[in-house]
Amino acid sequence: MLEIREAGPSDFDQLWPIIEPIVHAGETYPYATDTNRANAYRLWMELPAATYIATEGGMAVGTYYLKPNQPALGAHVCNAGYMVHAQARGRGIGRALCRHSIAEAQRLGFEAMQFNLVVCTNHGAIKLYRDLGFEVVGTLPKAFNHARDGLVDALVMYRWLDAD
Amino acid sequence: MLEIREAGPSDFDQLWPIIEPIVHAGETYPYATDTNRANAYRLWMELPAATYIATEGGMAVGTYYLKPNQPALGAHVCNAGYMVHAQARGRGIGRALCRHSIAEAQRLGFEAMQFNLVVCTNHGAIKLYRDLGFEVVGTLPKAFNHARDGLVDALVMYRWLDAD
Repeated sequence: MLEIREAGPSDFDQLWPIIEPIVHAGETYPYATDTNRANAYRLWMELPAATYIATEGGMAVGTYYLKPNQPALGAHVCNAGYMVHAQARGRGIGRALCRHSIAEAQRLGFEAMQFNLVVCTNHGAIKLYRDLGFEVVGTLPKAFNHARDGLVDALVMYRWLDAD
Repeated sequence: MLEIREAGPSDFDQLWPIIEPIVHAGETYPYATDTNRANAYRLWMELPAATYIATEGGMAVGTYYLKPNQPALGAHVCNAGYMVHAQARGRGIGRALCRHSIAEAQRLGFEAMQFNLVVCTNHGAIKLYRDLGFEVVGTLPKAFNHARDGLVDALVMYRWLDAD
């Protein structure tokens, strides 16, 4: 049974083992591949407006953050990032996180959601976001320096939140 | 005779009178319309990788900043923002700033430049960026809350720097 709730500082012990290998791989997020725990804490727990943890039987299996994508006159559009534990993939947890984030973003008063840098090789994420109503509104040529593939395109994906 | 050089802290006395009315108008930048001098200093002078001042006869007539648009794996793409003094518009200063920024970005090792939120009503900027080789690579529906016009679309514009 998947539970998703807001994460507090003490949850980071369980989140870092999810985040660290994803950041280290350098395939989906732009963060430096050698990002350490303290920097990750700042990026994932402090800078966002809110951070969430998904657990199954008390074990962390996923996490996401929400934050305004721009300052004041663009702050009605939020940005989110999702991570699923390597051992928990393929079971719909990413989808559950994304659905939860859409509801939570609406609750927090955001009106739209934007992903700024969806790596074009991240087919699973692109399909998931499309399934949940996001559209590709832009393509950034060679904007992501993929750790294995080198410079690859990134997509901008966007969804108005009341568009169900 | 227009001179463009890197700005230091003591230049901000001359930059704030350029920045303040533009931010206050809420028509082109997402910053809060009541952004104060200290916050503007942080946004324009401290957070960017570099900030520049354009002068004519010793008077500041324009300014721009350059910064990486994303962390490490996206940091080869820079972002820039330009402002021209209200009394100095229509004389090609914005164009000179943008040209200068392209050369300077290359010198600093950036490989591409991206504007994340070009307000669709900012026709002058859109034309200028197009003229200088930027393409509209995305449209963000109602992503900018224009102080007079309400929610309007914003464009993502992008240029690879060696594409002359």
